[in-house]
Amino acid sequence: MQTITRVALDAMGGDNAPAEIVKGAVDAVCQREDIKVFLVGQEDVVKEELAKHSYAEDRITVVDAPEVIEMAEPPVQAIRKKKQSSIVVGMNMVRQNEVDAFVSAGSSGAILVGGQTIVGRIHGIKRPPLAPIIPTETGMSLLIDCGANVDARPEHLLQFAVMGSIYMEQIMGVEKPRVAIVNIGAEEEKGNALVRETYPLLTACKDINFVGSIEAREIPHGGADVIVCEAFVGNVILKLYEGLAATLVGVIKQGLMSTLRSKIGAALALPALKKTLKAFDASEYGGAPLLGLNGLVVKTHGSSKAVEVTNSIYQCVAFREKNINGIIKERIIDTENEGKEDGNGI
Amino acid sequence: MQTITRVALDAMGGDNAPAEIVKGAVDAVCQREDIKVFLVGQEDVVKEELAKHSYAEDRITVVDAPEVIEMAEPPVQAIRKKKQSSIVVGMNMVRQNEVDAFVSAGSSGAILVGGQTIVGRIHGIKRPPLAPIIPTETGMSLLIDCGANVDARPEHLLQFAVMGSIYMEQIMGVEKPRVAIVNIGAEEEKGNALVRETYPLLTACKDINFVGSIEAREIPHGGADVIVCEAFVGNVILKLYEGLAATLVGVIKQGLMSTLRSKIGAALALPALKKTLKAFDASEYGGAPLLGLNGLVVKTHGSSKAVEVTNSIYQCVAFREKNINGIIKERIIDTENEGKEDGNGI
Repeated sequence: MQTITRVALDAMGGDNAPAEIVKGAVDAVCQREDIKVFLVGQEDVVKEELAKHSYAEDRITVVDAPEVIEMAEPPVQAIRKKKQSSIVVGMNMVRQNEVDAFVSAGSSGAILVGGQTIVGRIHGIKRPPLAPIIPTETGMSLLIDCGANVDARPEHLLQFAVMGSIYMEQIMGVEKPRVAIVNIGAEEEKGNALVRETYPLLTACKDINFVGSIEAREIPHGGADVIVCEAFVGNVILKLYEGLAATLVGVIKQGLMSTLRSKIGAALALPALKKTLKAFDASEYGGAPLLGLNGLVVKTHGSSKAVEVTNSIYQCVAFREKNINGIIKERIIDTENEGKEDGNGI
Repeated sequence: MQTITRVALDAMGGDNAPAEIVKGAVDAVCQREDIKVFLVGQEDVVKEELAKHSYAEDRITVVDAPEVIEMAEPPVQAIRKKKQSSIVVGMNMVRQNEVDAFVSAGSSGAILVGGQTIVGRIHGIKRPPLAPIIPTETGMSLLIDCGANVDARPEHLLQFAVMGSIYMEQIMGVEKPRVAIVNIGAEEEKGNALVRETYPLLTACKDINFVGSIEAREIPHGGADVIVCEAFVGNVILKLYEGLAATLVGVIKQGLMSTLRSKIGAALALPALKKTLKAFDASEYGGAPLLGLNGLVVKTHGSSKAVEVTNSIYQCVAFREKNINGIIKERIIDTENEGKEDGNGI
């Protein structure tokens, strides 16, 4: 008997909800048989949208969640007060093991707070990091942490490195993923206090393939597979990445459209150009997992279209099949034991 | 009588030394009469290069500096030991008021250390920030600080904001420059401890036009004129900016060259494309000033060509003519007095 992965999907989150979210769910269950989706949102709205599609009805269930958390709402308050929102209802389903994962394109802040307070951390995990995939010249890298927990400590970054490494190896199929820490120079003695204190912990960790520091300049070149940093820096990298890519593509488009001659050239070059730019786009890999939780929470872009939603659902299947949380539990316990052994001088 | 700005120029620093550096100096003195350049470097090498050009000989002086600081050398040690290097000799000339400014494309670390230890800080300035200009969709912004002094305190960032504001207003001609602090969300309560503590200081400062937080995504869109952050974050932004721009232009070129059809299109579109991409290039504004010193030190890109060198020399003229250091001294003293008045309850 085939095992089914059960995914709760926030039907109300993101700029293109509910249409693209619902379409993403329908596409997923039509393309694969090992998935069951729970569309969490305002029942009538979701059902109206679902009626536009044909699909196996036993594979999609609508779960009513009359409240909606807005993007601008203070996250802690929103999670506490809106018990009937799609985010709280979906996360409670993960907590109660009614589903394996929850996917949302909604408020990052609410997802991060909900992940920690409702779903809860794996025993031994100090902080759950948000780890988006970013595109590079040679493929993609995992940027860990881009969450909201700033002012991290060295032991947090060590756990991020271990979890990120497991994710890249198991889900992305990268053998012995190269782990690097974001720094402002290649030498070990460079960097701020956090980086200098974390560096030796990463060097000593046997569970990862630590390759040293990475300067931000090398990130787009694919200089490492797992890029470790604290959340403030991670956020800056992620958002600058998105903003600068959009700006440069805009500037180039403007250039291509500026003269008659260049317009003709652009028309000829466009199909090939679109193809290469598409390769520099990480949405095919799904959303950003929030790692280290008792279950899986995936944050997709606010602007997610159906294809990113579908890929995020597949990501949940891989996460469950590869038993990522089981491996995290083993390695984190190992790390703790290692620490104790060191302490005893064994 | 016209006043002359005297600039010491590191003839040995950067990837294109001495040829492009010497050319930059010659171009500067040929185009403007109010400049005198002191080319600091290995005398025979510099003189051989100079011999290839014709220029008014009383406007360029060669100053011998037999030692060279390599890019990979530990900065503190290099500055301490290599007293006859171009960086140490040039900075001593600023210190002794033999020149108004020193320009170098050499080791950033050595320039930052030398600036602080040889040239010295303006009385009251706690840290001299390195403030490169970065290109944006709408023009350019000043990113302050990108130096090597990490783990900054709120009062440092406040001084960066004041100095950056003066620079943008006086040198770049931006009226009431919009000052923003790099943050991971737009709300005041967001961010790490440093940002949360700095925010109210910036709000209270009457000398600047503080507009609040800026997310990294908005930087390339030109969301602020003066972008304040501590050096680790500034370094990440600057280097990711450079790395990602190079990667994206590379990816786009690859796309344009991938099919016969796209190659023809590219040939037609190229002139217009080059023109718009050139606008997205900050080298026309010169190098990055190290602000708050008793004199001026300018760091140009390691890959600087003659045009950036020439523009950096002009930047030194503007810096002196606009009396930037005089204004900094006034404002910093004002800030200190304000603090004292507050303390006395006046």
